[in-house]
Amino acid sequence: MTYNNMLNIAIMGFGTVGSGIVRVVSDSYSLIKRRLGDDINIKRILDLRDFPDSPYSNRITHDFNEILNDESISVIAETMGGIGAAYKFTKALLESGKCVVSSNKELVAAHGAELLELARAHGARYLFEGSVGGGIPLIRPMTESLAHDDITEITAILNGTTNFILTEMAHSGASFADALAEAQKLGYAEADPTADVDGYDSCRKICILAAVAFGALLPFPEVKCTGIRSVTPADIAAAAERNRAVKLIARAKRLPDGKIEAEVAPFEVEMTNPLYAVEGVYNGVLLHGTMTGDVMFYGRGAGSLPTASAVVSDIVDCGCKIGNQPPQTFWSDGSGLYARPDTASVEGLGNRLF
Amino acid sequence: MTYNNMLNIAIMGFGTVGSGIVRVVSDSYSLIKRRLGDDINIKRILDLRDFPDSPYSNRITHDFNEILNDESISVIAETMGGIGAAYKFTKALLESGKCVVSSNKELVAAHGAELLELARAHGARYLFEGSVGGGIPLIRPMTESLAHDDITEITAILNGTTNFILTEMAHSGASFADALAEAQKLGYAEADPTADVDGYDSCRKICILAAVAFGALLPFPEVKCTGIRSVTPADIAAAAERNRAVKLIARAKRLPDGKIEAEVAPFEVEMTNPLYAVEGVYNGVLLHGTMTGDVMFYGRGAGSLPTASAVVSDIVDCGCKIGNQPPQTFWSDGSGLYARPDTASVEGLGNRLF
Repeated sequence: MTYNNMLNIAIMGFGTVGSGIVRVVSDSYSLIKRRLGDDINIKRILDLRDFPDSPYSNRITHDFNEILNDESISVIAETMGGIGAAYKFTKALLESGKCVVSSNKELVAAHGAELLELARAHGARYLFEGSVGGGIPLIRPMTESLAHDDITEITAILNGTTNFILTEMAHSGASFADALAEAQKLGYAEADPTADVDGYDSCRKICILAAVAFGALLPFPEVKCTGIRSVTPADIAAAAERNRAVKLIARAKRLPDGKIEAEVAPFEVEMTNPLYAVEGVYNGVLLHGTMTGDVMFYGRGAGSLPTASAVVSDIVDCGCKIGNQPPQTFWSDGSGLYARPDTASVEGLGNRLF
Repeated sequence: MTYNNMLNIAIMGFGTVGSGIVRVVSDSYSLIKRRLGDDINIKRILDLRDFPDSPYSNRITHDFNEILNDESISVIAETMGGIGAAYKFTKALLESGKCVVSSNKELVAAHGAELLELARAHGARYLFEGSVGGGIPLIRPMTESLAHDDITEITAILNGTTNFILTEMAHSGASFADALAEAQKLGYAEADPTADVDGYDSCRKICILAAVAFGALLPFPEVKCTGIRSVTPADIAAAAERNRAVKLIARAKRLPDGKIEAEVAPFEVEMTNPLYAVEGVYNGVLLHGTMTGDVMFYGRGAGSLPTASAVVSDIVDCGCKIGNQPPQTFWSDGSGLYARPDTASVEGLGNRLF
């Protein structure tokens, strides 16, 4: 098989995920070419730093315009994180008709509706499989395989750090502080663990999944969000006596009036719920579809190669479909649609701890 | 939004899945139109019977040529089952350049390699998401989201009937015969349960998944296949004492020499394996990808609406991509590639019962 066309891509941000993309493209080069039907080339890597020892050192640029103005580059992976520069660059790229694929959950949760609309208006695509659930196929199955189903509810474990801490507490009886220290030692938690343990990471991710399912992006600061700092070994032991496990659950549900109930909170999860068995750094996402019933997706929710792998699947998707693809998902601004959950327990899941 | 084009489809076989397709297309009409960007119309339904009381009675035909020769029909759902007529009709449709989507695991497992090649040669598509795992998105995530990953191993519960029987035996201590009778009473098992309880259904499905992952279709009669007829309550109790659960496991693994190890057998599954918690009529498919790590897909593996939902996702996929799509999967004839498993246990899974 010969390849006549070259898909030139760029990466913005040569950190954990960005360097993972280089590795995935290199290791899976022939599989990617076969799927694309074209050759693939990483033409530019944008970073503030130099990488003199990298085999890709000659692709490094500090100038965003070298990517924006290069007409041969059609797909850009944004793995910078944060909102400031990533937001500005993504807008400029979409406005110029280039496709952007992202692992940046902060940006997608804050400005996804606007960026999707910008992509649509300029015949470009904005994909973000890598922003939720690491390497687990989630957003593409929701927007393609289940596109015609009516997803009514999402119940999920979306943060591997907190799930590791809660699993460690359950297995060893450790305190939250000791389990957090263990997670930090193993590289599963950051020095400043706030975004994970206070639930903000899970909250951004459930807002993204709810937007994919329900078509409206909730303003995530409105969403009720409780973390796991106050969970004690006694809470976990009491749950275990009732055959339940304490999990940080992120959930969203479309209500009959069109509002969207959503929250992040530690729950005592019943043994009969498939999320009960999701342990350690793993993530699990349980969807309820009117036609399909309950479906769960499970896997590693973080890590360089799994997340990079998800970003590469979006790159390949863009490469296959440049030209005449309908937008994969439609989001309105969900301001005013938020409904605060007001029941003590959730059927089929369990009760909130706090 | 207005729709200029009409996607005309036909259904062959108006049984459980075929009638489910009519219901899904009707109930999800607006979602399907939005995803397609086109309108959709079920123009013909092929069946030997008449359905005078169906609102679709005027679409029923007994003549396959009314579908084959209708140039306005571009996608056909084959939900007839079996090999004879389904094989002949599918070949004729693909040769005429029409897309065929199928829930027929017998046909895909027997002739999938030939039919995919026929589709490729005639610029058509042959999709079969509904042939494995009911409504669980499986084949599309494997061929799109994970296309660039190197899937090395598949371990799965692919038959809801046998999983229900084994779960029932574990929970109530019932014998195999009593649990089978219960499954038949509830409509989970057929009057002749051979294909399910002797493992043939699981065996066809693991051959299909292995072909998607490894690119070669094993001749399924060669694959070692043991069912659950000989499993006793004592076997299950002994496993439970070791914190294990007896499951009918279908597995396939690519070996370093390029051969494919595959089998269907009852295993004592370790508690740490995510398949341990898959109970009742549910299916679970655990994939290991070099980049992605372990990923599991879980849901109802059968039923009219879930399976029809998977078939409709293939119809929509064909409708979106008619024109210039690379083949989604490449299969060679896997004759001579089969490796019989020769170890007493499988790492991370458990040991075989027989």
